[in-house]
Amino acid sequence: MAKKYVYSFTEGNGSMKELLGGKGANLAEMTNLGMPVPQGFTVSTEACTRYYEDGEAIAPEIEDEIHRYIKEMEKITQKTFGNIDNPLLVSVRSGARASMPGMMDTILNLGLNDEVVEGLAKLTENERFAYDSYRRFVQMFSDVVMDVPKSSFEHFIDGMKKSKGVRHDNELDADDMKELVKVFKNYFKEKKGFDFPTDPKVQLMEAIKAVFRSWNNPRANTYRRLNDIPGSWGTAVNVQAMVFGNMGETSGTGVAFTRNPSTGEKKLYGEFLMNAQGEDVVAGIRTPQSIDQLKEVMPNAYNQFVEIAEKLEKHYKDMQDMEFTIENKKLYMLQTRNGKRTAAAALKIAVDLVDEGMLGEKEALMKVDPKQLDALLHPQFEASALKTAKPAGKGLNASPGAACGKVYFTAEEACKAASDRKEKVILVRLETSPEDIEGMHAAEGILTVRGGNTSHAAVVARGMGTCCVCGCGEIEIHEEDKYFMLNGEKVSEGDYISLDGSTGSVYIGIIPTTEAAIAGDFEKFMGWADKCRKLKVRTNADTPIDAAKAVEFGAEGIGLTRTEHMFFDPDRIPAIREMIVAKTLEQRKAALDKLLPMQRGDFEGIFAAMGERPVTIRLLDPPLHEFLPSKEEDIAGLAKEMKMDSAELEAVIESLHETNPMMGHRGCRLAVSYPEIAEMQTKAIIEAAIAVKKPAGVEIMIPLVCDLTELKFVKRIIVETAEKIIKESGAKLEYMVGTMIEIPRAALLADEIATEAEFFSFGTNDLTQMTYGISRDDAGRILDDYFHAKIFEADPTAKLDRSGVGKLIKMAVELGRKTRPDIKLGICGEHGGDPSSVAFCHDAGLAYVSCSPYRVPIARLAAAQAAIGNL
Amino acid sequence: MAKKYVYSFTEGNGSMKELLGGKGANLAEMTNLGMPVPQGFTVSTEACTRYYEDGEAIAPEIEDEIHRYIKEMEKITQKTFGNIDNPLLVSVRSGARASMPGMMDTILNLGLNDEVVEGLAKLTENERFAYDSYRRFVQMFSDVVMDVPKSSFEHFIDGMKKSKGVRHDNELDADDMKELVKVFKNYFKEKKGFDFPTDPKVQLMEAIKAVFRSWNNPRANTYRRLNDIPGSWGTAVNVQAMVFGNMGETSGTGVAFTRNPSTGEKKLYGEFLMNAQGEDVVAGIRTPQSIDQLKEVMPNAYNQFVEIAEKLEKHYKDMQDMEFTIENKKLYMLQTRNGKRTAAAALKIAVDLVDEGMLGEKEALMKVDPKQLDALLHPQFEASALKTAKPAGKGLNASPGAACGKVYFTAEEACKAASDRKEKVILVRLETSPEDIEGMHAAEGILTVRGGNTSHAAVVARGMGTCCVCGCGEIEIHEEDKYFMLNGEKVSEGDYISLDGSTGSVYIGIIPTTEAAIAGDFEKFMGWADKCRKLKVRTNADTPIDAAKAVEFGAEGIGLTRTEHMFFDPDRIPAIREMIVAKTLEQRKAALDKLLPMQRGDFEGIFAAMGERPVTIRLLDPPLHEFLPSKEEDIAGLAKEMKMDSAELEAVIESLHETNPMMGHRGCRLAVSYPEIAEMQTKAIIEAAIAVKKPAGVEIMIPLVCDLTELKFVKRIIVETAEKIIKESGAKLEYMVGTMIEIPRAALLADEIATEAEFFSFGTNDLTQMTYGISRDDAGRILDDYFHAKIFEADPTAKLDRSGVGKLIKMAVELGRKTRPDIKLGICGEHGGDPSSVAFCHDAGLAYVSCSPYRVPIARLAAAQAAIGNL
Repeated sequence: MAKKYVYSFTEGNGSMKELLGGKGANLAEMTNLGMPVPQGFTVSTEACTRYYEDGEAIAPEIEDEIHRYIKEMEKITQKTFGNIDNPLLVSVRSGARASMPGMMDTILNLGLNDEVVEGLAKLTENERFAYDSYRRFVQMFSDVVMDVPKSSFEHFIDGMKKSKGVRHDNELDADDMKELVKVFKNYFKEKKGFDFPTDPKVQLMEAIKAVFRSWNNPRANTYRRLNDIPGSWGTAVNVQAMVFGNMGETSGTGVAFTRNPSTGEKKLYGEFLMNAQGEDVVAGIRTPQSIDQLKEVMPNAYNQFVEIAEKLEKHYKDMQDMEFTIENKKLYMLQTRNGKRTAAAALKIAVDLVDEGMLGEKEALMKVDPKQLDALLHPQFEASALKTAKPAGKGLNASPGAACGKVYFTAEEACKAASDRKEKVILVRLETSPEDIEGMHAAEGILTVRGGNTSHAAVVARGMGTCCVCGCGEIEIHEEDKYFMLNGEKVSEGDYISLDGSTGSVYIGIIPTTEAAIAGDFEKFMGWADKCRKLKVRTNADTPIDAAKAVEFGAEGIGLTRTEHMFFDPDRIPAIREMIVAKTLEQRKAALDKLLPMQRGDFEGIFAAMGERPVTIRLLDPPLHEFLPSKEEDIAGLAKEMKMDSAELEAVIESLHETNPMMGHRGCRLAVSYPEIAEMQTKAIIEAAIAVKKPAGVEIMIPLVCDLTELKFVKRIIVETAEKIIKESGAKLEYMVGTMIEIPRAALLADEIATEAEFFSFGTNDLTQMTYGISRDDAGRILDDYFHAKIFEADPTAKLDRSGVGKLIKMAVELGRKTRPDIKLGICGEHGGDPSSVAFCHDAGLAYVSCSPYRVPIARLAAAQAAIGNL
Repeated sequence: MAKKYVYSFTEGNGSMKELLGGKGANLAEMTNLGMPVPQGFTVSTEACTRYYEDGEAIAPEIEDEIHRYIKEMEKITQKTFGNIDNPLLVSVRSGARASMPGMMDTILNLGLNDEVVEGLAKLTENERFAYDSYRRFVQMFSDVVMDVPKSSFEHFIDGMKKSKGVRHDNELDADDMKELVKVFKNYFKEKKGFDFPTDPKVQLMEAIKAVFRSWNNPRANTYRRLNDIPGSWGTAVNVQAMVFGNMGETSGTGVAFTRNPSTGEKKLYGEFLMNAQGEDVVAGIRTPQSIDQLKEVMPNAYNQFVEIAEKLEKHYKDMQDMEFTIENKKLYMLQTRNGKRTAAAALKIAVDLVDEGMLGEKEALMKVDPKQLDALLHPQFEASALKTAKPAGKGLNASPGAACGKVYFTAEEACKAASDRKEKVILVRLETSPEDIEGMHAAEGILTVRGGNTSHAAVVARGMGTCCVCGCGEIEIHEEDKYFMLNGEKVSEGDYISLDGSTGSVYIGIIPTTEAAIAGDFEKFMGWADKCRKLKVRTNADTPIDAAKAVEFGAEGIGLTRTEHMFFDPDRIPAIREMIVAKTLEQRKAALDKLLPMQRGDFEGIFAAMGERPVTIRLLDPPLHEFLPSKEEDIAGLAKEMKMDSAELEAVIESLHETNPMMGHRGCRLAVSYPEIAEMQTKAIIEAAIAVKKPAGVEIMIPLVCDLTELKFVKRIIVETAEKIIKESGAKLEYMVGTMIEIPRAALLADEIATEAEFFSFGTNDLTQMTYGISRDDAGRILDDYFHAKIFEADPTAKLDRSGVGKLIKMAVELGRKTRPDIKLGICGEHGGDPSSVAFCHDAGLAYVSCSPYRVPIARLAAAQAAIGNL
């Protein structure tokens, strides 16, 4: 039997979203529920995939199948395509498995031509309406199907209004519309070289193809990437008999939600317009009425709608977003779907639905998108202000939230403006470096020209919960002259800009923000999540403040403390620099002796903040040159400070220079070259744990391991140092020594590595970089081009690549467990806060994920969903 | 039954090298052959391994076993340890599985103490000899076993000679020796705080431990690394009854080879000294006589020795290097082993042994170390001059051969000196870049401060066959002031230095070199290799000259043509720069149009040189900024040349800057961003093939692939371009499109990649870098420290890492074949010319290896050996 590609609404049902798309499946479901739905059929997503496989063409057998379904539709509606007396008009709408509002194309009133329009005029006794519909169809079809932009037609309408001396479209009469149709069709012919198609079947087939094509338009691609929707899914196409809400005062159209999508309040919420088509609601020519008022205008239709709405919500066990049309007092349902909602509403609805007995806790947990929780933890733009704002540029959505403030180009200036003048500040940098930390702290938002989702700016901003847009390559920055150019606009120091770290949009000017506010249902809801999940959630935190914040958000331990971040403190950097430029072991040890009490103090603070929770501390990781200045005047200053010859210091810095620092002298390689650094850090860790009487849960992590012998070498330093201190102190302290798995070779040889490592923590940032051979700092340009060419659908530094990096991780998990069945496994890369990556970690059988404090709630929910999804 | 750790010479045999070491096995074998060997026993290599496992201690049961064997030895020799009347004296010598001449320690005359020495004096009726032996023993034992350096004792001898007014040691009499023993022992006690051990059994046990320890001394480690000897093998210890060649005029000692080790001539070759110990031959106090003269001095011993030598050569089927001692007219054999020889001798001996019917061709092939062939292809230092030369510093042995010339610090100066003044030039650079190519061509040798075995300098130098020492971090370079400092010595522009690219040694001053000379047996020998091997051997060549050179050396195709090297030609670089700074597609295409005929010309030349052999051409690989200048004045010059604003050009260069260029915008990522580059290169390749009427064997290679979709994208550009040209030309041309596997992800997903790739070429340079997370350009310091800490035994960029990188390759081979059983598999990394890596490629089932032209003969022999070894 031939494969079936087309389904009438009576053949489908609500569970067939994969095949029919959301809209198609729900139209079928409503039909099955006996609700009033204009009939039609759905061309399946498989037809879309096939269309692309066949080189953007609809195979003859699918075309035949579509024609058979048209025939059937004609039978049911008792109308006929192209029939002047009783014409069948249809809408053609996209509908993918996941809702992608506004991303793809729609064509209404299809089936009209010079003859049919006359029939429609007679049938509706409304010539203006008929020709207006025809005019709209020509315009829409030309735009969507034939690549003749809608705007060129608007130009003619403007001309007509001018010559008639009127202001609004609805002041144009039937003859004007007739004239416009003529003008439009002439223009079409001029542009395309052939006549506007008159055969409704040809119109339909072209429209279907256009919807298929629209699956791959740039805005749909971007939307999919931002929402984790695979390009392989394809869209279905819904062909549905038109009903008209504009047939006079007994007709109308509207949209409504079963609950308030902003607050979650349980009350029908929506609006409608009498004598209008859906398009007019959007166009905003007349102000729609609240859905409550429909009760008075058309009580029967209203009651029927309320009944249907309640039934649908119960049926789908979720808030519904519905479209309806009333044609001559008769109610038609055009769409229902689970409604989009704010984060606060999402939580309230989920909790209410459980209270109402409609959902179990686990079902409720599946109703909230973990990423949405971000909105509760970060400031957002005021929705009304955002509506009219147009982004001036786009970067990577590196750290969520919204920010608005005055532009400063150096950390120093940013600090000054924020502390002295109490200004709200946006720090704009080519790229940030550890020296910018204070300026980043002072800023409301951070904008960089270079760097990817795991660049310094991104990682630090997420840790602080500060809004950040990274790698906005469109910016041409002139730091010294204190301005930047963005797509032709000049922004100078002190000018206002606004950033949306959740989308990556950059706006010039002020967009007001609203503060973050955790809703009351948050704790209850997250409590359910904690009951369900198998994965523990830890945090990446380098300071007692971050650690405390993360505990507040539900962190169950620290998965990564980066010890180097502590060294950038102005009090400490002299000592670390002294250590770096030391010429003898003695000098180096003397410098390290200065650092020891500081590090011990850091760890005491962190241990205290975390209580009995486990804490993983990573040994010094970055290449030493990161601690040294690079500009000539700074070097001269430092040389003076260190009582060194400037040239000598320059020579030291020069000797530390690396071509590819990411793959250079860093991580445990530093401990091999300078065992005394690892010794000092171990001392600080162990002494701190003893000082705060921490009995266990101290995990010392060796970074960048690629070889067993190397791991042994560094572990021996740690163990010898630790054992000596523990013995001398007489304290009881359990500690573990483990390693990051962040170099492909360590994953490949995890069985060997596990003979020494008591735990693995997958450092998926570096592991992704090296597995792909893409440097996070240089990824911006590459990713842009790869998204554009549709090679990548997601940024692998943000969403864990399951097929490649994931394969390595699974291999390492298996090999590691073979050697050491109880080996502790976790992940501490930035992926730990990404829901899809968390799901992977659950599947891979890890014990925990670790992420920045502000992502802890997201990870908790994502972990619960992964556990529920796998039931 | 307890494990056996000790073997008497009668228990062992020649095949037990793994257990007994080379020396021990051969002593046992000679014993079995009935040859006169002073008896003794061997403590096995397993005892050495055990010694390290037990924390550098000899287990009691092994100590007991040794004592039992001493007893047995006492029985056989009828002498007793510590017996004054008939004392047993022994030598204690190391002996690893592979010969490591001079790398580990030896102790002679063990068993002497204040009493025994008297007995020896009586027995030999030579008091001076006895005390001289005792004096030597105290000195040797203190040095080797007790860490009291030999030189401090020499100081006392010098003092004694001075006070007695004599010049040579042999002018000191018995009383002087007695006195020296006393002084030595006092000094020992002062240094160590305890008396010099008198118990021969204690002496022996300490000596054995010291030999075990010497396995891990720095010079042994370095030797092992350079000669691919694993640290896990351990050394055996041979304890052998002393015989004395210095018992008067009927005694003597000597060394001899069965053939001439310099030329291979079939004639006993060696020297001897009457009334002497082995040590004296080395010390050079008297001039030894040629072995022929022994015939007259002691005809019986001579005839017996000649007979034994012939027997040994026949027995071992190889030239033997023997040590013997004559004690009172009686000949004793102390050692035999396969002798070290020059490359020319190695070939001659191998071919002669086949001609003499002693060996089959395959056996003969196994007798020559492939790495030795280098010496036939490159200049070498004159052996006599090298003997007295001391290296002033050490770098990586990046490209073999020897060179001597005047130092220049810029490519320009080097060219000028070489062409105008006809000087021999050594180019010294911090690191080289493509702009230095001409200077590198002009130089006899290249020395860089930074960079590893696969750095630009190393790769290019090997390609040109030019001697190169890389990453000599000891050098402090002052390019602008035209001098460098090397361990305290200043070398200025125009000063002579000498480089040994085969060892990495840097000498200050002139060491004369001898020209390369391919011996007559070369062709015959390599012909046998070609018959045996399964692997094809291709070459990496970027020019017709290199290609022709490689064919001369036996290359069967090109495995890698780097198209970018062609762009650095001064004629062309303007066009490529024009392309890079182009602001529009049109400008870029115009620049590419200029490059097209040049590229086509390159490929025509290469195709012509290679005839019908297959040629793999890689698309543009390096990041574009490599083609742009970095110094301010050069940028200004270029801006002028390109009629651009200097600031604008700087902005372009700045925008191309990358933090980690190795993992940046390069390889196929360039083709994704600029499809027109891939298009131009494909055009050039296909048009060139058609022009020279090449019917097949054109292989277009896409670099740096990490993803199937990416590969598809670039392949489509190539195929569409190629098909169009082929169709239009009407020519017949078979071409393939394949990919490099050089990113871990490509290896992990090789099954997917193989759906599109028609061949895989493993780019093991990058694959090693990314699998290890070590940048080749920054590896120098890391490797130094890792060798020092005994973490790495080999440089993975020079010798393919089987366990990690090898695992990835094997995985990719298996996955690739699963999808495409006939997929063509090769390797084009620098490892293609390393014998151990070639053996891996054979085992992994690859079809070919590709290496620089000068390594082709090495690869051919290594491939043959791998095939024979696996029979």
